[in-house]
Amino acid sequence: MAHDEGKLTRLNPQIEINHLEPQKRVGLVVVLTGYGKGKTSSALGMVVRACGHGMKVCMLQFMKGDIFTGEWEAVKKMDCDVELVAAGMGFCGIQGNPYSHARHREAAQRALLMAKELITSGKYDLIVLDEINNAVHLKLVDLEQVIDLLRSKPPILHLVLTGRDAAPEVISLADTMSEVRELAHAYRKGIEPQPGVDF
Amino acid sequence: MAHDEGKLTRLNPQIEINHLEPQKRVGLVVVLTGYGKGKTSSALGMVVRACGHGMKVCMLQFMKGDIFTGEWEAVKKMDCDVELVAAGMGFCGIQGNPYSHARHREAAQRALLMAKELITSGKYDLIVLDEINNAVHLKLVDLEQVIDLLRSKPPILHLVLTGRDAAPEVISLADTMSEVRELAHAYRKGIEPQPGVDF
Repeated sequence: MAHDEGKLTRLNPQIEINHLEPQKRVGLVVVLTGYGKGKTSSALGMVVRACGHGMKVCMLQFMKGDIFTGEWEAVKKMDCDVELVAAGMGFCGIQGNPYSHARHREAAQRALLMAKELITSGKYDLIVLDEINNAVHLKLVDLEQVIDLLRSKPPILHLVLTGRDAAPEVISLADTMSEVRELAHAYRKGIEPQPGVDF
Repeated sequence: MAHDEGKLTRLNPQIEINHLEPQKRVGLVVVLTGYGKGKTSSALGMVVRACGHGMKVCMLQFMKGDIFTGEWEAVKKMDCDVELVAAGMGFCGIQGNPYSHARHREAAQRALLMAKELITSGKYDLIVLDEINNAVHLKLVDLEQVIDLLRSKPPILHLVLTGRDAAPEVISLADTMSEVRELAHAYRKGIEPQPGVDF
């Protein structure tokens, strides 16, 4: 089914398509924080876009690793140069999570080493460090370690950092930064997490 | 390359994976608004998740149709039941766009008819109406028409509405709703839109 032209329909095909091409390619630091829905999903959207441009992409998920989420299966179905690494042991400190802070930190530190390797390899066009802001907030990684990652970023690499409670020092290094505010959430009405939207 | 298991790595494979399954499946109304980056990309992220769950998905883009964006190509590379319809003629009222408000409205009204067909067909698990909030704000579609779409939604269908300036009446019908606030944006530093992130 790869390269199925039938999947895209333009209702106004007479209109010329403008292919934007920036005069200068810049690798952006994008930070997505806040308590609302739409941080990891937004990062996944950038993965999709990058895929459409034939870019090489990796999403490295801090903390996540114990709950199946749609993107784990979806990357296998994407005919592009995309990798996903679930590096975590679940959300540290969340009720029911059986692992100590020390073990969570150990896992996060391994993820951080991997992030450094991926970033400095120069092989990627876009790397997502999913939940890393949260990992800093929970002291699974140190702020200085994240600043070091940002400083070691090749100029052409897009680096996306997601997670609530982004540190001001990280925010100050962002080119593009959004705070996703929750105005409503289904779980407040007692609706359980739903596949396709929440995971 | 479809179903390439090598694309997913779990760094802690000893941890059991929990497959969430809600006792009750609910089709959510998700509204993403605000002026920051991360509305369409977030909707694309839900497309990815839904793809991972084997769902049938359609993204219908209002207004967009004159500028190539990565997702147009990416959907062709996704080995899942996903369609993308670019139904627009560019952003109405933006400098350089040559089409009259009447022509933009005509295009948006055709998109709306299509949206109604898609939604009421009962064939989809997730439908994204990209930029529809903006289309209402610009009077390309009427608020009542969108309310009618929401009312005609099958209970099990997830419906995602994106775009700045969401109307309060639409907001009040959302199960999950985020406002994406811009805290920084690369274009304010004079950086042109970059592929993989901005389009």
